[in-house]
Amino acid sequence: MSVTAADGFEAAGVAVGLKSSGNLDVAVVVNRGPLKVGAAVFTSNRAKANPILWSQQAVQDGVVEAVVLNSGGANCFTGSFGFQTTHQTAEKAAELLGVGSADILICSTGLIGTGDEVFRAKVLDGTERAIAAASADGGDAASLAIMTTDSKPKRSVVTQGGWTIGGMAKGAGMLAPGLATMLVVITTDAVLDASDADAALRRATSVTFDRLDSDGCMSTNDQVTLMVSGASGVRPARDDFADALTQVCLELATQLQGDAEGASHDISIEVVHAASEPDAVEVGRSVARNNLFKAAIFGNDPNWGRVLAAIGTTAAQFDPYDVDVWMNGVRVCSGGGPDASRDDVDLTPRSTRILIDLKVGDASATILTNDLTHDYVHENSAYAT
Amino acid sequence: MSVTAADGFEAAGVAVGLKSSGNLDVAVVVNRGPLKVGAAVFTSNRAKANPILWSQQAVQDGVVEAVVLNSGGANCFTGSFGFQTTHQTAEKAAELLGVGSADILICSTGLIGTGDEVFRAKVLDGTERAIAAASADGGDAASLAIMTTDSKPKRSVVTQGGWTIGGMAKGAGMLAPGLATMLVVITTDAVLDASDADAALRRATSVTFDRLDSDGCMSTNDQVTLMVSGASGVRPARDDFADALTQVCLELATQLQGDAEGASHDISIEVVHAASEPDAVEVGRSVARNNLFKAAIFGNDPNWGRVLAAIGTTAAQFDPYDVDVWMNGVRVCSGGGPDASRDDVDLTPRSTRILIDLKVGDASATILTNDLTHDYVHENSAYAT
Repeated sequence: MSVTAADGFEAAGVAVGLKSSGNLDVAVVVNRGPLKVGAAVFTSNRAKANPILWSQQAVQDGVVEAVVLNSGGANCFTGSFGFQTTHQTAEKAAELLGVGSADILICSTGLIGTGDEVFRAKVLDGTERAIAAASADGGDAASLAIMTTDSKPKRSVVTQGGWTIGGMAKGAGMLAPGLATMLVVITTDAVLDASDADAALRRATSVTFDRLDSDGCMSTNDQVTLMVSGASGVRPARDDFADALTQVCLELATQLQGDAEGASHDISIEVVHAASEPDAVEVGRSVARNNLFKAAIFGNDPNWGRVLAAIGTTAAQFDPYDVDVWMNGVRVCSGGGPDASRDDVDLTPRSTRILIDLKVGDASATILTNDLTHDYVHENSAYAT
Repeated sequence: MSVTAADGFEAAGVAVGLKSSGNLDVAVVVNRGPLKVGAAVFTSNRAKANPILWSQQAVQDGVVEAVVLNSGGANCFTGSFGFQTTHQTAEKAAELLGVGSADILICSTGLIGTGDEVFRAKVLDGTERAIAAASADGGDAASLAIMTTDSKPKRSVVTQGGWTIGGMAKGAGMLAPGLATMLVVITTDAVLDASDADAALRRATSVTFDRLDSDGCMSTNDQVTLMVSGASGVRPARDDFADALTQVCLELATQLQGDAEGASHDISIEVVHAASEPDAVEVGRSVARNNLFKAAIFGNDPNWGRVLAAIGTTAAQFDPYDVDVWMNGVRVCSGGGPDASRDDVDLTPRSTRILIDLKVGDASATILTNDLTHDYVHENSAYAT
């Protein structure tokens, strides 16, 4: 049910030919209230797609009536024509819903540079058809319509204390922090004001989507939107809501990791006893972005030297000659030298756990990443063609 | 001839079984004077191999009598036993040459974590045999003995005004700045004092090896050594020497790029009209490290959106919507939108030129990199096994 699991929301997914496969490619999520609160976080890439430029402005007042999303084209680096397409999409949705266009968010995903007249006509057509089709059980269709190279839809629902949070996500590559390459819409019928919604969303994404780094590549189109209908009539404690929202975000982030393009291992890099949380994140991310490490994991090769070479490039506090490294529960390196034999490490399971003990403090962080595989190279060498 | 092209040097390469192939694996380069000047630059990785820890100290006084190099094991993260191996190697060479061990530099390359008793015995044996074999025509053998996954030796010689610079390099992966993963020894019979040698070496490497970034992975064992015999009796003008040294470094860097593991394209990323040289380097490096861009080039796909997405992650001065991108001479993006058709771009040649015009200043820089290929993944998933 994803985005229609919470009361007060309608959604739909329709097919208008943006995808050559004929699959669903335009989605809407409409907030039927009573509250119309919204919050969103965006890619930190300075090269931002037109929908991002629009939505960043539109969300400022904390009011979101609906989100229109399309796959099959990123509408990024498509010039002023592309921005007008986004603007016209918002106006079309606003007109059909009887609201202001500044309360409509837009998301696009697909090939950068795609956004011509044909694209515009299909998106406008899809917006009209999706709003006409929107219903309280349209969440699953919406989650299918935002898929690109995803092999399956990503959905998560948490219900507690009389209120519900549900979400959908898409993303299978270009997954890197700030944010991972993704479109995510999360809805809730809990009662929240705009500042609480914004704070909860930033807190949840900072420890989930922002720590997913499948390939070090940051997208131009990332957007995570939280929509609040208040239809449950229940105002949860601030921490309860933030915790539940973090859970939904983590479940979606884990699903994104598990479906990353071409990956054969889901790698969790846990850094413990760091001097600070930013240190732990820096160390984890440096390993997550090391192609030699990632290729070794693909080859089921416990090449811990590449872990140490990667963390040696960071500015984090630690003694390079007093770091322990564990791979799937086996301590392969300790005190600056080899420990257990490489032969003791079984890297054949898809789920792979790297534990790095920096031995200097009490902070920790976990980065989620994937291995570097032939299939990753294949998919990404043939994407546009 | 590489390191024995200049007068006053002897070299050798011998085989002691560090490589399972039986190929040459220990090299020496001996300075027969009259000067014994030396300078070296090292990896900026905080995780440094034992030979780096040793050589950094040994080169401090600007005197280098000889360099002993081995392939078949990095002697990195091998604990105090590994450091003692390096120390014993220097003492062995010093004793045989009748000099002080603090004037012997050591370089090792191969798998991190390799450095046990067997390794030590072979390296000591190789040191003795190589010094016994050293001759004025041993440069070629030395350049073969330092190869690891290299498919061919890398050599360069420049002669002018009565003096010569010659060099050898090894490196085929883990090529990233500060320095690229490499061992390089450069010799000259020009007359230079230690501070001039050091300054010229730093200037030359900063615009050559430091701008080679094949896979974003920084080694633990990088070392570039310059040895000065003064045997020509000619003291060149400072700029003349620095220019010639830069030429030798650039030729060796280009040979390293051309032999990078699994690569099918040699990519030159030229950034022009940047506000500063560091900005130009940051932008070029960000593109060079973007796996999606690198995979697209492998697929002969002029996916310029990935170039813009990569530069959007930098802090360099520019307007993301007013950048021009050229691929092999075709302007595929200008003013924040598509320009010439993708179909006009021919990416089939191995030599690939990306030109990025930031349109804000007068600085420029060129980064050398490679594409991300199936063969890169294959070679690096199977390295240790």
